Amino acid sequence: MRVGIIGARGYTGAELVRLLCKHPAVTVTYLTSESQVGVPISNLYPGLRGHIDLACESFDPETACAKADVFFYALPAGEAMKSAATLLAAGKKVVDLGADFRLQDPERYRAWYRAEPAPADLLARAVYGLPELNRAQVREASLIANPGCYPTAAILGFAPLLASHRVDPATIIIDAKSGVSGAGGRSVMKPEYSFPHVNDNLRAYGLVSHQHTPEIEQEFERLCGTIAPVQFTPHLIPMTRGILMTGYATLRGDADTAGLLGEYAAFYRDAPFVQVLPEGSLPETKYVLGSNQCHVGLKVDPRTRRVVVVSAIDNLMKGAAGQAVQNMNLMCGFPETQGLDLPSLYP
Amino acid sequence: MRVGIIGARGYTGAELVRLLCKHPAVTVTYLTSESQVGVPISNLYPGLRGHIDLACESFDPETACAKADVFFYALPAGEAMKSAATLLAAGKKVVDLGADFRLQDPERYRAWYRAEPAPADLLARAVYGLPELNRAQVREASLIANPGCYPTAAILGFAPLLASHRVDPATIIIDAKSGVSGAGGRSVMKPEYSFPHVNDNLRAYGLVSHQHTPEIEQEFERLCGTIAPVQFTPHLIPMTRGILMTGYATLRGDADTAGLLGEYAAFYRDAPFVQVLPEGSLPETKYVLGSNQCHVGLKVDPRTRRVVVVSAIDNLMKGAAGQAVQNMNLMCGFPETQGLDLPSLYP
Amino acid sequence: MRVGIIGARGYTGAELVRLLCKHPAVTVTYLTSESQVGVPISNLYPGLRGHIDLACESFDPETACAKADVFFYALPAGEAMKSAATLLAAGKKVVDLGADFRLQDPERYRAWYRAEPAPADLLARAVYGLPELNRAQVREASLIANPGCYPTAAILGFAPLLASHRVDPATIIIDAKSGVSGAGGRSVMKPEYSFPHVNDNLRAYGLVSHQHTPEIEQEFERLCGTIAPVQFTPHLIPMTRGILMTGYATLRGDADTAGLLGEYAAFYRDAPFVQVLPEGSLPETKYVLGSNQCHVGLKVDPRTRRVVVVSAIDNLMKGAAGQAVQNMNLMCGFPETQGLDLPSLYP
Amino acid sequence: MRVGIIGARGYTGAELVRLLCKHPAVTVTYLTSESQVGVPISNLYPGLRGHIDLACESFDPETACAKADVFFYALPAGEAMKSAATLLAAGKKVVDLGADFRLQDPERYRAWYRAEPAPADLLARAVYGLPELNRAQVREASLIANPGCYPTAAILGFAPLLASHRVDPATIIIDAKSGVSGAGGRSVMKPEYSFPHVNDNLRAYGLVSHQHTPEIEQEFERLCGTIAPVQFTPHLIPMTRGILMTGYATLRGDADTAGLLGEYAAFYRDAPFVQVLPEGSLPETKYVLGSNQCHVGLKVDPRTRRVVVVSAIDNLMKGAAGQAVQNMNLMCGFPETQGLDLPSLYP
Repeated sequence: MRVGIIGARGYTGAELVRLLCKHPAVTVTYLTSESQVGVPISNLYPGLRGHIDLACESFDPETACAKADVFFYALPAGEAMKSAATLLAAGKKVVDLGADFRLQDPERYRAWYRAEPAPADLLARAVYGLPELNRAQVREASLIANPGCYPTAAILGFAPLLASHRVDPATIIIDAKSGVSGAGGRSVMKPEYSFPHVNDNLRAYGLVSHQHTPEIEQEFERLCGTIAPVQFTPHLIPMTRGILMTGYATLRGDADTAGLLGEYAAFYRDAPFVQVLPEGSLPETKYVLGSNQCHVGLKVDPRTRRVVVVSAIDNLMKGAAGQAVQNMNLMCGFPETQGLDLPSLYP
Repeated sequence: MRVGIIGARGYTGAELVRLLCKHPAVTVTYLTSESQVGVPISNLYPGLRGHIDLACESFDPETACAKADVFFYALPAGEAMKSAATLLAAGKKVVDLGADFRLQDPERYRAWYRAEPAPADLLARAVYGLPELNRAQVREASLIANPGCYPTAAILGFAPLLASHRVDPATIIIDAKSGVSGAGGRSVMKPEYSFPHVNDNLRAYGLVSHQHTPEIEQEFERLCGTIAPVQFTPHLIPMTRGILMTGYATLRGDADTAGLLGEYAAFYRDAPFVQVLPEGSLPETKYVLGSNQCHVGLKVDPRTRRVVVVSAIDNLMKGAAGQAVQNMNLMCGFPETQGLDLPSLYP
Repeated sequence: MRVGIIGARGYTGAELVRLLCKHPAVTVTYLTSESQVGVPISNLYPGLRGHIDLACESFDPETACAKADVFFYALPAGEAMKSAATLLAAGKKVVDLGADFRLQDPERYRAWYRAEPAPADLLARAVYGLPELNRAQVREASLIANPGCYPTAAILGFAPLLASHRVDPATIIIDAKSGVSGAGGRSVMKPEYSFPHVNDNLRAYGLVSHQHTPEIEQEFERLCGTIAPVQFTPHLIPMTRGILMTGYATLRGDADTAGLLGEYAAFYRDAPFVQVLPEGSLPETKYVLGSNQCHVGLKVDPRTRRVVVVSAIDNLMKGAAGQAVQNMNLMCGFPETQGLDLPSLYP
Repeated sequence: MRVGIIGARGYTGAELVRLLCKHPAVTVTYLTSESQVGVPISNLYPGLRGHIDLACESFDPETACAKADVFFYALPAGEAMKSAATLLAAGKKVVDLGADFRLQDPERYRAWYRAEPAPADLLARAVYGLPELNRAQVREASLIANPGCYPTAAILGFAPLLASHRVDPATIIIDAKSGVSGAGGRSVMKPEYSFPHVNDNLRAYGLVSHQHTPEIEQEFERLCGTIAPVQFTPHLIPMTRGILMTGYATLRGDADTAGLLGEYAAFYRDAPFVQVLPEGSLPETKYVLGSNQCHVGLKVDPRTRRVVVVSAIDNLMKGAAGQAVQNMNLMCGFPETQGLDLPSLYP
């Protein structure tokens, strides 16, 4: 199977190259970057020296179709919707790591992204690629909307509680913390992402307006059937990779920590990339560094009748490229964990 | 005025030395550390070379009374209550940076600290030293319970909303993030505070059980008259200094961001160490690094009818030693900002 | 092939587990830690959850011989020499990641380690396991002295220059910089390795006395035949992994950057784990993070007639566990890169 | 005394504002930034809120002369030489924190900066502002060339050895390590200074070609009378502030560590900002963080007959703005330490 990466220059694109150049079932045959035409990817990312010897080219749908069978878009919102139809028409499989196909409701997209949504027929084909919730649909899909990093952590953290109607969705507060590779990007050269500003510093951003909010709400609604606004606050942490979500929700009935953890373990019984931690243990981002795992832990607070959920992912892996490869594996009939079955790097 | 620091070896003790050795109205004349008897403090902290030439001794109340007039305890919970009465009986002024005198209700202390509370007569004399709320009482006090770092950030963040009954206290969720100097301490040599573990890592801790919870609740109750449990979750951030609090509360009536910010500005009109940020700006810990300032910002979310409050302090300054010096200034009749009036270090 | 790791609790032991539990030709069957008897390794290192399900036991040579065929010692100096003979006598293969068998001259060991050297017969069997210099010997070995992290960076950086007698060995100065995982270790809980002290800090250590000095000198002598003391200074850098060596030497004749780089490329033609960077490029530790590669670059200074060499490795990979697995691969007849052929993690 | 800062937007300009707004003998009355005209400096640097209420304006020499008496240029090389003559002609005092007046030899400037040097009459008036070497000249100066950050660390580290001809200057190798605030700058928005790239990374740069090399050589020549090229290699360290210099030189005769340290102590007897550390202690950058101190330590290596010198400064303080204020103090007849006499921030 030949794969192409459209937008190979950014962190997400490079992470796809890193994973796919070692994936036993595929060969990377096509890389694009409009600003790096002709530049070998191993010049941009010297860690790839000796592993892949391919140069970036300018994206052209016709060439793309000739050179590869599966495509990953690692581009800003609004780009994939321009050409995905052409690739699909040629029988290719497509995973979009951007936001173009994540929101099924075009009005929601307009309201939060302040831009035109993707065409309705493309949206109709798109499957939201969170295999832990909809593995069967992913297997059948030709167009995957790869989830955002924060939504991945939030949805995996709350899914069992929402599916069992254990919590009131209107009470959910998601306080998320991300390393800088998820926010800054290689091409976002603003002073607020420079090392001297970020190092030993901490801030909230996107308060009450972050574009991952409607994506979380959409999936929460699917899980529990109730429409409710979610309070979501992201923070920028002085670390490179990793997302930690701390979520709060009011319980609807009696529940204790051990019981809920048991329900989580059952819910994720067949999920190779979710680890439900035992009572007393909580996730730390370092334990999923460079891995496709999501670690989840929780604790019930009998004083407040809330449950506090903590989940951790690597934003470039389970939060982006790793999950995209997981989706590709399912779409293409490969084992779900192929090319992704590595322990995290520690310390 | 001669000052003594009981427990000079830890980060908080050393920060007191740093501030007080340059304070124009006092002279540091007494330093204690049981493990460093005879060792000059500038050997332990080479940055103090050329600024102070005093060695640590073993604590002895009688010697202490002979050598200084004002005392700071920078010791673990349970220590100050053993000898503070002796110092007070000798007419000394005392600031305890530990937890011994913070909780007025002995049962609360027993429940959260699982230890015996301070004697009732000492508790009766103790004033909770958050001058922005009770400057007049602090001026008259001889025994100050210096607030915890998280409570300082949380109370300054929510005080105007609680005093005006703008929010329902039972809905308050405090998601706080701290640098490691507030958690680890110099003497806490556990693997989880070692550089390789903390660096590029992120975790929650003390879930639903942190001892700063009842302290926050006590002061919230004083502000609004309502008893309600507070949801409080601290996190450990890979940075040295700084606390960022992100707080959530449901509004009781109509309110907008600009209006609330105006109320904050009015509430803190006479507070030299609180900066209410303009609409659109949010605190970052780096802007208070090494300073005694607390920065506060907020935003109303019309979708959820909640207000999100963000506050930032330096945990060793406004969260510990700086606030202790501010309390000393008030107790001793010095200008409130004396020895503390420095911009933060940036970057 | 069954492998055992003696001393699995430390960073190096855990890195061996991480690599070996995914190595296609071996199974990890034996783990020891005297302080963690009965504790599953995935409890100590939650990133291993789902990858290996084995508990630590107390080391016992007889049990060891029954349970595994190849052994890795990841213990402090002085430990492996106590029991390696027993394992070797049982026909096992042994890789010692400590210092016991690195110095062939017992007097050198005594002088620098201030301890008794290993028995002469063990030293006689030991092969210094730097395959880029002596691959053939490693293939035949049953006892490998796995090189130190600094020596690996230094020797790979200077080997081509020394072998060709391009530089005067008496002029070599090695200024090396290491992340904290190479110095502190998980069990070394000193204040100087705590996060607040190391973060945003920088220092030299072991000045003119570091124990890796004689190891570098021994191998330099083998390469060029001349005995000369080497100036070696290590530094502690606020990062987790990585070593950068900056080396200086006076050239013996005319040489230019391009010419020397050509000689390096030829010297390392068959080395899958050394990348000689093109003129104008210099190594950065991040480009070898989590990988077994060593990146090397250099520049001639015509003003001073010196060559400046820069090399970078991951101290836990090519500087310890990765190199140990590379040695195992050669000893056992596996492909040299098996289980190690991964690009670095970036960013 | 009214002071003006030309180029207030960068890190160095902001550090000048931080120091001067609290300096008891001066008032900041003039700030310029071509890109931030009309913007209050406390908007750019929120840590200055409450301390200074002045907006940036566009630089105009005539306005400048009307508004202030002493000027600091914090601009890139080539800027100060355009207008300094006008300020001097109006009787103003000028400190240039850039490179325009550092090299007395115009050919040297041309060769290393590849640009036209400053006019000869300006160079003739300029005094290299390293008070530890030439305090008397600085007192009489009206135009100060404020030293570069690396040269400050290197010259203070080697001055006593060179002045006493203890070492052969041709053997000096300077391996220097800097935090990112000294290299990147607020306006240098290149990917290589972004947090994800710099964090947990380490690299050398400017190999054999850094522009601070001739500045070091010029001052070394003044100290010892011998012209010799210096080997200088800077490195970028994942920390915000701080420079550590590790210097190597071959001794000309017998010397031991204690004896040399005694000579250093004598040499710096009257220098309030140099601390010679006792035998066995070595500088760490954190001990000078935010302070104007330079810490120096050394060790003789009897095996190699070299001396290894280590010095540490805060690159924005003694390496830039702090030293500039020290120079201003001397030029204006203020106490040398006024406004600079603060312990470092720790941890």
